[in-house]
Amino acid sequence: MATINDNYLKLKAGYLFPEIARRVNTFVEANPDADIIKLGIGDVTEPLPQACCQAMIKAVEDMGDRATFKGYGPEQGYGWLREKIVAHDFQARGCQVEASEIFISDGSKCDCGNILDIFGKNNTIAVTDPVYPVYVDTNVMAGHTGPAKDNGEYQGLVYLPINAENRFTAEIPRQPVDLIYLCFPNNPTGAVASKEHLQAWVDYARQHGSILLFDAAYEAFIADPAIPHSIYEIEGARDCAIEFRSFSKNAGFTGTRCAFTVVPKSLKGKAADGSDVPLHPLWNRRQSTKFNGVSYIVQRGAEAVYSEAGQAQVKELVRFYLDNAGIIRAQLTAAGIGVYGGVNAPYVWVKTPKGLSSWDFFDKLLHTCNVVGTPGSGFGAAGEGYFRLSAFNSREQVNEAMARITRAFSV
Amino acid sequence: MATINDNYLKLKAGYLFPEIARRVNTFVEANPDADIIKLGIGDVTEPLPQACCQAMIKAVEDMGDRATFKGYGPEQGYGWLREKIVAHDFQARGCQVEASEIFISDGSKCDCGNILDIFGKNNTIAVTDPVYPVYVDTNVMAGHTGPAKDNGEYQGLVYLPINAENRFTAEIPRQPVDLIYLCFPNNPTGAVASKEHLQAWVDYARQHGSILLFDAAYEAFIADPAIPHSIYEIEGARDCAIEFRSFSKNAGFTGTRCAFTVVPKSLKGKAADGSDVPLHPLWNRRQSTKFNGVSYIVQRGAEAVYSEAGQAQVKELVRFYLDNAGIIRAQLTAAGIGVYGGVNAPYVWVKTPKGLSSWDFFDKLLHTCNVVGTPGSGFGAAGEGYFRLSAFNSREQVNEAMARITRAFSV
Repeated sequence: MATINDNYLKLKAGYLFPEIARRVNTFVEANPDADIIKLGIGDVTEPLPQACCQAMIKAVEDMGDRATFKGYGPEQGYGWLREKIVAHDFQARGCQVEASEIFISDGSKCDCGNILDIFGKNNTIAVTDPVYPVYVDTNVMAGHTGPAKDNGEYQGLVYLPINAENRFTAEIPRQPVDLIYLCFPNNPTGAVASKEHLQAWVDYARQHGSILLFDAAYEAFIADPAIPHSIYEIEGARDCAIEFRSFSKNAGFTGTRCAFTVVPKSLKGKAADGSDVPLHPLWNRRQSTKFNGVSYIVQRGAEAVYSEAGQAQVKELVRFYLDNAGIIRAQLTAAGIGVYGGVNAPYVWVKTPKGLSSWDFFDKLLHTCNVVGTPGSGFGAAGEGYFRLSAFNSREQVNEAMARITRAFSV
Repeated sequence: MATINDNYLKLKAGYLFPEIARRVNTFVEANPDADIIKLGIGDVTEPLPQACCQAMIKAVEDMGDRATFKGYGPEQGYGWLREKIVAHDFQARGCQVEASEIFISDGSKCDCGNILDIFGKNNTIAVTDPVYPVYVDTNVMAGHTGPAKDNGEYQGLVYLPINAENRFTAEIPRQPVDLIYLCFPNNPTGAVASKEHLQAWVDYARQHGSILLFDAAYEAFIADPAIPHSIYEIEGARDCAIEFRSFSKNAGFTGTRCAFTVVPKSLKGKAADGSDVPLHPLWNRRQSTKFNGVSYIVQRGAEAVYSEAGQAQVKELVRFYLDNAGIIRAQLTAAGIGVYGGVNAPYVWVKTPKGLSSWDFFDKLLHTCNVVGTPGSGFGAAGEGYFRLSAFNSREQVNEAMARITRAFSV
């Protein structure tokens, strides 16, 4: 009799985005003429850089010609892409990362979940609260937690609250934790971490033998030159950190699918017999056995991000979204609403006005302004009283949304 | 202190294909002028169908234009692709499969491994011997086995021998097993299963509450109209089978990456409390949480496989490789070497002549004929004394390889 993975039954049914969709649909049915503006999910709206498109058309042509056709590629990704990544994203910033430590994948979300395959079942896991839900759900599915408590937290996970008081950077935990998810620039709060803050995490991790799972999917949005883009800018990080990167948000690859994960060869975990085991060969074995590499066509598109034209086009895209974020910040501030983030990140983290709950503010924005955002409480209990607005939309829509909010909320 | 997944340490280091590469490299270093012909790994050699290339170029253009740009797609795949698959691959063959039961993915290898996520840890797993190594290795990594024994088998797995005596179709086991991997047309033996044989498996699975994991990646090569292409052609299979399909071998997508998995809504597994839980929502949750869908560009390429031009081009590709297989069969037979498979499959399973071991035959072929194949023992203990030759190469290379073998081995 085949049995199921019972851990899946612990997952809460009402996931955030389906509930948002349900409320929006109900409103639209009752108000079919409403002009809804979505600043909710973190999906880009602008087209791919032309350099990427040109490279992918050339790659499709390669695939149609026997002389240049590509069958199975390396599961880890093509050398020409791994080398450009290393040179541009790491060595140019003074980070010691080798091409063989880069694993090309079809998404950071996939990698964030799949990375748990190589770790033991007995690790203590720490996440921030609020947090990107995938970190939590994949640990629930892997059996690393107990059941959900009434407040939505899962037993056995260590939650590190982030809020305005600690500038949305978690305090270093007092108890020992083994795997720690950090996301900077942060989803959902838009916060960034200083070099000193990251150094404190690296020092903690090295002292306790912990591994930092560092999600840098939004690093391209860092405008402040003092803020690190990679955890490997921090002394000692090669001994304690795995980094996740993506082409989704810098080059608009959310529908094209390419990302990468960095696993330094110096990184080790403990085996049951107490010996130290390098993690690089484990992840390499995981990817070789359960993955077949990213489409040649898509890898050629990602490579073009590093061309001169590609770099200029990506910079322009990022600037466009950051300017949107700046408009959101300025308009809300003028309307007397508190805002965080949105300076080095595409997310603005809004303090709900008049003490409204996250969902009450959601409903009010939807009904009064026909604007859709994301309730902060959907990212965790400590997100209550906050609200996420994303900068991914046209300038016209962002301006219109802000005009409506200003009219509705100005004091 | 972060711990590792100790199950990875059970994996045998010497994986088949690296060992082949090592021996080939050693030979080439000593014989730099040798003209090596590779009939080893199962990678296609002919270019993509033009219909697929045209569709992908159009899709890249879509991505470069704001009006037609696509961000995140459905994690399960686009409806237009799922519907074409259902109409063409299933309903046209009388199988009851709905579009919502199709999950588009980036590879069958990935799906075959990832599917274990939704099952319990206490299932008894059955594989054939010889077998596609991914089924075994992913179960080792998931902790479903004990350590490897001296003969290379893993403790706790149930091995079902397939050989010339049982026509490379395993006998239905006497003991209860919970998850059963079946691959038809078979990799590595090239064998196919009759409707009666598959009906016996479905009947067994329904009687024992087992799940069949049916790998049909090579179904396009079935030439005999009496052989089922899908497990869902078998009465009752919707209650006990998951099917894996791929565009890799029919349309040459090994480097383009697209596949799909069918999880019928009627399929159930047992929860710890003894209740029956449908598997479809579990796999849907797994994919939504740990996967972000296949590239829009690639899905458009896969869709073109179902166009009139695409169908004609795929048929021609398959015919080309099957003719290669026919040449291999005929030439080896004429040389007095026993062959199996290669009629409804791109693999010819060779009985090594003169009682040679699989690796001795490998070395002899390499050194005498400069031809590379795959030792049968690499697929499991019962593959000893066999050898896999693949039909994926140019006609010229196949003819040349066969001429060399005929000269070397003819009696």
